[in-house]
Parts: sequence; structure tokens; C-alpha cells
Amino acid sequence: MKIMVINPNSSADMTNHIRKALEGIKRSETELTVTCPDKGPVAIESAYDETLAAFYCMDLVKKANAENYDAVVIACFADPGLVAMKEISDILVVGIQEVSMHVASMLGNKFSILTPIKKRIPSKNNDVWRNKLPYNLASVRELGMTVTETDEKPDLAQRRIMEVARKAVEEDGAEVIILGCAGMVGYAEKAAKELNIVVIDPTSVAFKYVEAMVEAGIKQSKRALYAHPSEKEYKT
Amino acid sequence: MKIMVINPNSSADMTNHIRKALEGIKRSETELTVTCPDKGPVAIESAYDETLAAFYCMDLVKKANAENYDAVVIACFADPGLVAMKEISDILVVGIQEVSMHVASMLGNKFSILTPIKKRIPSKNNDVWRNKLPYNLASVRELGMTVTETDEKPDLAQRRIMEVARKAVEEDGAEVIILGCAGMVGYAEKAAKELNIVVIDPTSVAFKYVEAMVEAGIKQSKRALYAHPSEKEYKT
Amino acid sequence: MKIMVINPNSSADMTNHIRKALEGIKRSETELTVTCPDKGPVAIESAYDETLAAFYCMDLVKKANAENYDAVVIACFADPGLVAMKEISDILVVGIQEVSMHVASMLGNKFSILTPIKKRIPSKNNDVWRNKLPYNLASVRELGMTVTETDEKPDLAQRRIMEVARKAVEEDGAEVIILGCAGMVGYAEKAAKELNIVVIDPTSVAFKYVEAMVEAGIKQSKRALYAHPSEKEYKT
Amino acid sequence: MKIMVINPNSSADMTNHIRKALEGIKRSETELTVTCPDKGPVAIESAYDETLAAFYCMDLVKKANAENYDAVVIACFADPGLVAMKEISDILVVGIQEVSMHVASMLGNKFSILTPIKKRIPSKNNDVWRNKLPYNLASVRELGMTVTETDEKPDLAQRRIMEVARKAVEEDGAEVIILGCAGMVGYAEKAAKELNIVVIDPTSVAFKYVEAMVEAGIKQSKRALYAHPSEKEYKT
Amino acid sequence: MKIMVINPNSSADMTNHIRKALEGIKRSETELTVTCPDKGPVAIESAYDETLAAFYCMDLVKKANAENYDAVVIACFADPGLVAMKEISDILVVGIQEVSMHVASMLGNKFSILTPIKKRIPSKNNDVWRNKLPYNLASVRELGMTVTETDEKPDLAQRRIMEVARKAVEEDGAEVIILGCAGMVGYAEKAAKELNIVVIDPTSVAFKYVEAMVEAGIKQSKRALYAHPSEKEYKT
Amino acid sequence: MKIMVINPNSSADMTNHIRKALEGIKRSETELTVTCPDKGPVAIESAYDETLAAFYCMDLVKKANAENYDAVVIACFADPGLVAMKEISDILVVGIQEVSMHVASMLGNKFSILTPIKKRIPSKNNDVWRNKLPYNLASVRELGMTVTETDEKPDLAQRRIMEVARKAVEEDGAEVIILGCAGMVGYAEKAAKELNIVVIDPTSVAFKYVEAMVEAGIKQSKRALYAHPSEKEYKT
Repeated sequence: MKIMVINPNSSADMTNHIRKALEGIKRSETELTVTCPDKGPVAIESAYDETLAAFYCMDLVKKANAENYDAVVIACFADPGLVAMKEISDILVVGIQEVSMHVASMLGNKFSILTPIKKRIPSKNNDVWRNKLPYNLASVRELGMTVTETDEKPDLAQRRIMEVARKAVEEDGAEVIILGCAGMVGYAEKAAKELNIVVIDPTSVAFKYVEAMVEAGIKQSKRALYAHPSEKEYKT
Repeated sequence: MKIMVINPNSSADMTNHIRKALEGIKRSETELTVTCPDKGPVAIESAYDETLAAFYCMDLVKKANAENYDAVVIACFADPGLVAMKEISDILVVGIQEVSMHVASMLGNKFSILTPIKKRIPSKNNDVWRNKLPYNLASVRELGMTVTETDEKPDLAQRRIMEVARKAVEEDGAEVIILGCAGMVGYAEKAAKELNIVVIDPTSVAFKYVEAMVEAGIKQSKRALYAHPSEKEYKT
Repeated sequence: MKIMVINPNSSADMTNHIRKALEGIKRSETELTVTCPDKGPVAIESAYDETLAAFYCMDLVKKANAENYDAVVIACFADPGLVAMKEISDILVVGIQEVSMHVASMLGNKFSILTPIKKRIPSKNNDVWRNKLPYNLASVRELGMTVTETDEKPDLAQRRIMEVARKAVEEDGAEVIILGCAGMVGYAEKAAKELNIVVIDPTSVAFKYVEAMVEAGIKQSKRALYAHPSEKEYKT
Repeated sequence: MKIMVINPNSSADMTNHIRKALEGIKRSETELTVTCPDKGPVAIESAYDETLAAFYCMDLVKKANAENYDAVVIACFADPGLVAMKEISDILVVGIQEVSMHVASMLGNKFSILTPIKKRIPSKNNDVWRNKLPYNLASVRELGMTVTETDEKPDLAQRRIMEVARKAVEEDGAEVIILGCAGMVGYAEKAAKELNIVVIDPTSVAFKYVEAMVEAGIKQSKRALYAHPSEKEYKT
Repeated sequence: MKIMVINPNSSADMTNHIRKALEGIKRSETELTVTCPDKGPVAIESAYDETLAAFYCMDLVKKANAENYDAVVIACFADPGLVAMKEISDILVVGIQEVSMHVASMLGNKFSILTPIKKRIPSKNNDVWRNKLPYNLASVRELGMTVTETDEKPDLAQRRIMEVARKAVEEDGAEVIILGCAGMVGYAEKAAKELNIVVIDPTSVAFKYVEAMVEAGIKQSKRALYAHPSEKEYKT
Repeated sequence: MKIMVINPNSSADMTNHIRKALEGIKRSETELTVTCPDKGPVAIESAYDETLAAFYCMDLVKKANAENYDAVVIACFADPGLVAMKEISDILVVGIQEVSMHVASMLGNKFSILTPIKKRIPSKNNDVWRNKLPYNLASVRELGMTVTETDEKPDLAQRRIMEVARKAVEEDGAEVIILGCAGMVGYAEKAAKELNIVVIDPTSVAFKYVEAMVEAGIKQSKRALYAHPSEKEYKT
């Protein structure tokens, strides 16, 4: 099976990180491509960034369809452009945010999301709402680090993740923690062990989920919400 | 006061229609600019179209900020890119969808939305959800006409609007009808009279709303959700 | 256009305050009447007070209809008797609470309400529920001052508003503050500037909103919820 | 124990009906007073009617408190003025609507409400919302008879109740029917038997409920929502 | 009238406590049986315990039906097996949890639940959700005592109830407290007096509720959700 | 990896069906055990049946833990005893209902559930509620066949599934169909093709999901909701 993982952040470094993490967990027979658009924000931290990133990812999604991939994974914890990507695809498209939230909902009472910076908290709250899972959210808490910093300062990131996850557990009643940024890949295990909770690395979990769903023959319904866009003129 | 109305559909015809309608209702002292991007879909009928349209509208929003406009109105009943636009603006930005849904919620028990084509019904349902007004929705019903057709065949559009609105009233309990497409501008009055209900033309209502809010000094909060995007590298 | 603003509190002082504030922001061509019933509570601070105030306001609403006003604004942040008033009116009737909550919902992630005294917090929570906007509320916080005190001690009121609004922003995640009492008119601007948020003075915002809606020809639907009461015997 | 049942409709006939029904089911030691205000609408069929009725009932509630009643029951399926009554009472006050909706929620999957006339359907929907039980409602259906007619034409009323209840069961999935008007007292039994469902006569059920709660020493909390109104000037 | 109260905890001591409490409040003509299964957990503190207790209670419910009881009360604040019991019964079956939550919802703004141990908090939150009353919950707080301890150490239990209830009132806005364990029977009165709130002892309130409903002829609907299980083979 | 699939229905025939279906889709290296309790209902069609089945499955779950299985799948579209099973397990436990509902939520706008018999419709509605996914449900529709019949009459079952799924799509707006009974295993493919929608066979999808989650190291959190039951006396 061929899976394309698209990092909507136009950062080669972060894309390499993701590739490395996924190569360590993919099934041996899975052909994995991890890529990113060559335009757009190097780190997605606003709806404006999401708008640009979504635009620049569209061609990659079309390419995955044209080159007989079996599925596409969007590896940014905002699922930018996800509905549009499902529309233009005949192959399965999943976002790491939607998968990790749904999986988390089955693993404990409520989940908390760790997000890089404080001003993004309402945005993550709204993402939970968009996924229609408001009753499964314990809290959104910030690390106080930018996306780039979580990628560049691994020791600090690991320590902050431990501190903030502990607060989510003790003060908000979280039983599951979602590392809400593709830049936090790789920090889940240590936090889970020390805090006796489940910590979800969305990219890894979504990737394994997709391998299974491809085997099960599952794709998005093309009936209405994700139907192909009508033919029309696009001015260029 | 200077207001820029952006039609995210790249259709000069539809933009002219909107301009004409708004010139007839604007306050005399309001300076009105109605414009559209020169790239992107001529008619927005999918999330894919919205993604492209949102991208191409960003420069117009920046222009409105740079040229001392007082407010921007996004004239497409999907509010494409609205959150991003509020982020990058120091001036008030409103979408015709958000305003018409909130106004409708105060005018009767529940509202119904008329949408051009059937496969867009779940999308409009989700738009109501995104606006956090699920308890005010009676139904979404389709005209069975494309966006372009509603603009080009006014007699048929008027007749279909009457028929479908009547069903929404009688079968779904709607007391307010929202004409859910900028292409339906101009059809509200006749339907309202004949059916003894309120029919909202979102573009007109949102425009008058914006005139008032500018006078009242009201803008979106720049605190968190609509805070300016952080400085960063955007690859181009 | 002729607009009647009814202060349901039977206090001439507070009514004068409101008149003064609105005369400063009304459009020059708007004919403004600000009035209050001559019976009932001087300050509305309970459902019991609301019941009495609603009763005594009915004649004023009928008068506005009889004397060709274009709209009525109910200037008490409890919207007492609002549904009944919409029923008996052929002209637009709006409450300052409903308008300010809906407007606030479009300006930021979540709003907080400042209410005079602590024991009214659950009541304001229920008002948000009644307006079907529970997902837009950050918190309700009390000033610790009675309605009359907020009117009589402007310096203390301004200071308390600043303190409490800051807590709502920092502890509850509010991005918009609603001054939840007609007695707090005039304190919005300073708080907004200092806290970098939006502060809504419900009376002013609702008044400007009504001017716009009258121009747009918008009224409540008379179809069912706000249909005229059936003819019948009223014992007197 | 002494219980005062207040019919907010100022109709002696309907009040007599209610008295008769309750005398047949009250416990022998219960002292029962069934009364109605001598002013206000003879039949409550709008928010306007509710506003007037609520006002005129206040003195009766005060009287019940002054004369050492143990509880008050408001016998109108709109619970007019209920929050205010709970505020001014040290004794238990219940509305027949709140009790019947909560009891119905425990007896089957979802309940339907029969209401006299069509235009009141949205109002009853909103009453369910106000009671925070939206997930327990199957539907609201109208008899097509006024409140007065349900009282005056018992045969027609019984027949219509059967017909409409059957539709609620078969088309809306109702398992419990609430007779949503004090005028429908006495019709429950036959409908229940024939349709193999539960039919709730709100006045009877609420009355028995109150007898039990008085014995259990249960009253509304006076902590905040139902706290006594603050002392103040009431202009008269 | 004959009422069977089933304590699903297989503890003779706790069952005796409940019997004693109910004998003090039952109507003189009520024939009361308080019993418990002779198998299963002595204290129900997990879903696993509930599963076992539910299984072992089924025969008691069948016995109540066979021996012409008028109603069954399940006296455990988890309502274990309640839906199944309503299915297999032609007589009224109520759980103390469902009744106390619904009654509490009518007595104040929001209720808080006191639960024995901390790890059960999410479970009680889910119980509120299952009863479809999420909007009436202020909080769930733990005593920090096991079920058995609340039964064995009455002084400590009373003191902890006071402390925790006070926090629920002051920090969470509770106006009604539900003693969320049958082992807490008897502590309500003192807490209510000192804190000026309503404290509900679920077993007592549910018992009085059932006496009234039996007199009113109210039972669960046998239409669908609580229909008798179909005939079939049960392997044994 | 070793996975135990437990069919809570005590039917060897149905268990064989499930085994056959899963052997056709399991990964070659997966060791699969499909089993059922030797006591309890042969077909689960009521809460009473679920209560018995849950009880008799507990030993199988303990066995899976003792014999070093990696995960347990509960193969009944009611997830009987699921919370208890998660509590007593250190290995991953999933129910086919929870997984299929969450997966379906990502594949289209709304899903419909096909259930064997009409009187179970409210029960399936409540299951969706319990999984906190009420906003993703289009409808529950019945086949009009018992669980046993769906297993014994494959041609009729296939035809009914097609008919009912078509209604769900056309009348209720479903884009995804869940075959809501383990007895419907094997009918998904044909319906999906003909109706151009997604049809989920819960057992297959949940099984593939579990293979992936075991590889990803994902288990339920043992923090609170699914914590091990406290030690105590169980009378036997």
C-alpha cells in the first residue's frame, strides 16, 4: 500500500522529523512518502497560515490521486483544507486532528490538548467543536513555545509537555493527552509512563489508523459533503 | 465611512449585481466599493472552491486595511476565509452568513436556509454548526439550481424560491427564510409578502449591519482568536 | 425614523442617563424617545422585578405601535417581557440583551457578562441559555454593586468594571465583555482600551443595530412564535 | 398539609374542572384550595397572556405564603411567572409543566406534547428548551382547538387527543404523551389504554408530586436563582 | 401499596440502614420491603461492580412483579441495570439517581454531586449525561472516603459532606447538593441547614416520589425502550 | 499479535460466521481467537439480554488478560459491559459500536444505523448519545427482522439492507450506513456499490482498527474512568 503524508508546514526540517518517526512505525510493506508544499508558511499558527497552507497542499493531494496512492494523511494539528481534500480525492484522506480526537474519545473520560502558544487556545477549542466532540474535551493548555521552538528545543519541549500534561490531569480531569502539533512528535512515550495516562502523538496514531482503514477498504463517502466539486471555470 | 464588499466569486456579473443592490440601500454618505478577486472559481459551490476563493481574497482584505476602509463585508454565503480575514484586519470584517444567521435567530423561532444545489445541504448544516447556532435551524432546502443559474434565470429563481420557502414554512416550521447564496440577492421582498414571513437577503442585511457597527465603533476582538498572525517566513 | 427606547426600570434618573448616551450616538435624522413606565421597580434585580416591569411596559409598547414609531428597544439587560412585546407589535422590537449577545458572538471566541450582584449570576447564565448561545459564554462575573449603585457611583463602577473584566479575560478566556446592565452605560470605552478587548455597551449597540434594521426593512416574523395574541376576554 | 393550586387562567369554569379532578385524587388528609386570579386572560394562549397572568397571580402566591400553605402548584402548561413565584416564596412552588416534563423523561424514550393551537408549537418547543430537556422531546403537535374549546367540547377533545397522540407515537417515536394544557385534564386514561403508552395529565401528576415532596421536606433552594428579591422601591 | 426497595450492594448492614431511614418517612399504609441480593459486591464502586450487581438484582425485580408489589426502587446512586429492570417489569421501577437528578433540576440553578472516591468522578459525570441533564450539573466532588467508610464512620462522613458541599456551593455555584451514594443516607438535614441550600438524600426523595407516582397510576411506558424482551433461548 | 474477539451472543453459529469473516481479512501474522460465552442469550435484543451477556463475558475478558492477548474486541452492536471490561483489562478493549460510530463520523456528514427490529430504535438512539456523538446521527431504521433471522436468511437480509439503506440516504440524508448488528456481517459491499455510499460492517472495521492500535501501542487510560475496580468482597 502507498501512503502519502503531507506536512502542510513548508519546513523541510519538520518534514524530515515526521518521516523519521513514521518510518520507525510503518508496516514493512507500506510504501511511505512524506512531503510538504514548497510554498506557504514554515509553521502554521493562525487561520491565515492555514488558509495559505491549504491552498498550497491541493496540488499534492491531486498528485497522490494521480499517482495511485491509497491514502493521504494531513500532518498538521489543524487539519487545514481537509474537507476540500476529501472532496477532490477518490482515495482516503484523513487529518491527524480528526483521528486523534476520535481515538482519544474512546480511551478515557476526556482528553486535553497541548497547543504551542496561548493565543491559539480558542482556535483549538473551535477545532474540537468542528469535529462535533465538545463533550469529550477536558481542556486546551499551551506549552508557551512556538511550533518552531518545539521542533528545535527537544529537551525544553519534553519538560514543558510533562509539566502541562500533569496540570491537565490534576486540574482538568484529563485522562488522555493529545500532543496538538506535528512538531511534538516523539514526546508521547515518556509523558505517558510518568503520568500513568495515555498520550497520543496524532501523526503516529493517524498513520497506523490509515494503514488499517486502507486494508479494510474504507474511504470517505462521495455522496454529498465530500462529493467532487462541480465542473466550472476557475480563473487563473 | 468607506466599506469594501468582497464577492469571493470571481464573476464580474455577480459582482455587478451585488453592487447595484447595495447602491440602492446604502446610506448616502457611505463610500461603497464592491469588488471580487480576479482569480479563483467564478461560482463557489464546494469546500475546494472556498479554499481557492479564500486564498485569492486575502490581498483584497489587506488592501482594504491599507487604504483606510472602515470595514469589509465578505459576500458569499459560506464566509470563506472569514477567520483568517478577521485575523489580518484591524478594521471590522463580517461575513454575510454569520450576520444573517444571528439576525434571523432574533426574528422568529427557527430559520430555514435555501441553498442552490442538493449536495450542498450537509455543508450548510455544518455552517450553522460552525456558527454555534444549531438550535435555531429549521432546515436547509435546495432550489435545484446552480449558483450561476440563480444569477442568470431570475424568473425561475424567484418561482423556485417561493415554492421551496413555502415548504420550509409548512413542513419544517420555519418562520424566517435565509436566501443562502449571494446570487439570490433581490428576491426577498416578494417571497416575504406572499408567505407572511421574514425573508433575509444576507448581503443587504449584513451591509446595513456593518454601517451601524462602524458607527458604533465595534470591531472584532484582537485578543486571541482573531489576533494578528505571528511574524514568520512564508515561502513563495 | 422614530425609535422608542423603553427603560423598564421606573427610574427617571437612569432613563435620563440612557437618553443622554443615545442622543450622543443617534443618527441626526433619527427621532428618539427614551421613556420608562411610571410604575414598577426602580431597579430590576430579580425575576419578580422582571414580571412587574414587563407588565407595566406593555402599554408603552402599544403606544409605540399606535403612534407610528418604527421600532422599540427594551433597555434592560434581562429583556423582560420581550416575547410578549414582539407578539403585540407590528413594528420591530429588540431587547438589548439579545442583540448584544448575538453581536458579541461574532467578535471573538467567547464573551463574559458583568452583572451587578452575585446572586444574579445563575439568572444571567439562564438568559444566555434562553438566547440559545450557551457555547459562546466564557463566564458571568459580578461587580458586587447594586443596579442603583452602578448608576450613582460612576468612579467605583468604572474601577470595578476594569478589575472584573480583567479577571474574565485572564481566567475565563473572554475576548469580549458585555456590560450586563443598562446602568453601566458609558463605561465601555476605557475598559476596552486598557484591556485590548471589545467591551459592549448593550444599549448603544442595540440602538445602532435597530437604526440599521429599520432601514433594511427587517422586523420579527409574525408567523407563529411572535404571532398576535388571539382575541379573547381579559378580566380587569 | 395545605396545598394551593393556582389556575393562572381567570376562568371560574376551568378552575372548577381542575378542583374536581384534584379532589378525586388528593390524599384524604390534604387540604386543597384551587383558585384563580380575578383579573387577566380567561385563557392563556400567548406570551402576552402569560405576562398578564403572571402579574395577577403574584398576590395569590403571597397569600399562600402568608396563610401557612405548604406548597403552591401553578396549573397552566406554560408555568407563567414560575421563577418569580419561587423567588418570593419560602414554601415549595412547582409548575405543572416542569414536573410533567421531568417525570415524562423517566418513563420512556421521548415524550410528545399536545398543544391546543398550531401557532403555539414553537412556544412549547421553547418551553422544553427552557427546562433544559431538549433531548427528551419527540414532538409538539396541535389539537386544532382553542383552550376554551378543549374545556367546552369534551367529546371532540377526547377524539382529537386520541388521533394526535397516535400520530406522535407512530410518526415521531413518542412513548409518553403530555396533555399540554390544564384544559385537557381528565382525558389521559382512555388514550393511554388504547395506545399502550403513558399519557400524563400534568395537573394531576404535579399535584401528587407536590404531596410527596412536602412530606419529604423538599423546597426550592433560596441560595441564588430563587433568592428573595432585594428590598427596593416599587412605584405604584 | 407495596414497595420493594432493592439495595444492589450485597451488604446487610447498609440495607438495614436504608430500611431504618425509609421506615421513618414512609406513609403508614405503605408496606415496605427493603432487601438486597445475596451475591455480588458488598459495595458498588466501579462499572464492573455495577455489572455484577445488576445481574444479581434481576431475580429480585422478577419477584417483586410476581408478588404483586406496586413499585420497585433501586437504591444505589448508579442505577445499575435500571433499563433492563424497567423492561422486565409491569410495575413502576425507578432508580434513586434518575429521580434525584430530575428533582434537583427543579429546585435551583445547578446541582453538585458528592461521590465517595475521586476516581469515580468521570463516572458520575457520565451518569448525568446518560440522564440527559448535562446543563444542570455544577460539579461532581469526592469525599475521599469509600462507600463502606461512609457507612461505618458517620461523624467523619458528616464532616466531610459539610466541607465538600460548601466548596461546591462557593466555587462551583451549586444550589442543590445530591448525596451521591446510598451510604450517605441520613446526613442531608444538617448540611442543608448550615449551608442554606437544598441537600437531597436520593433514597428518601425517590421513595416518597414513588409513593406518589403509584397513587397517580404512573408507570414506565412499555412501548419501545422499556418493552418486554422478546422470547428466546437463554443458555444456562 | 493475539486478538480475542468475543461474541456476547451465546450462539455458536453466529460466532462461526464472525470467525469466518475475520479470518478473511486479518493480517497473516495476527493470531485470532473468536469465541462466545456458553451461557446467556443466544441473541441480544434488549437491555435485559445485554445485562446477562455482559455478566457472562467477564470471565472471557479475564482469560484474555491472563493468556497474554494483546486486545479484546466485543462483537455486538450494543457494546454490552464495555466500560466494565475496560476497567478490568490491562490490554486494549474496544467495542464494535464505539469504533464504527467514530470511524463513520469521519467519512461523511451523518450516519444512519440499521437495527434488526423496530422497538430497538430508541435504544440505538441512546447508544449514539452514550458515545457522545448525537450530532453525527442521521437516523436509526429497522430491518424488520430479528437478529437470528438476519443470520439465517441471508438473501432476505441483503435485500432489506438495500431497501432500508436507500431510504436512509434519500429521506434522512445519510452518507454512511452502519450495519448495526454483528449478524449483518458480510452484507456491506453490495450495498455500498449500488448506493454510492459507505457501508460499515462494524466487526470488520473494529477488528482492523484494533490491529493498528495494538501496533501503535494504544490502550485505554487507566487513570480514572477505566481504573481497576478497588479490592473488595464479592459474595458468591
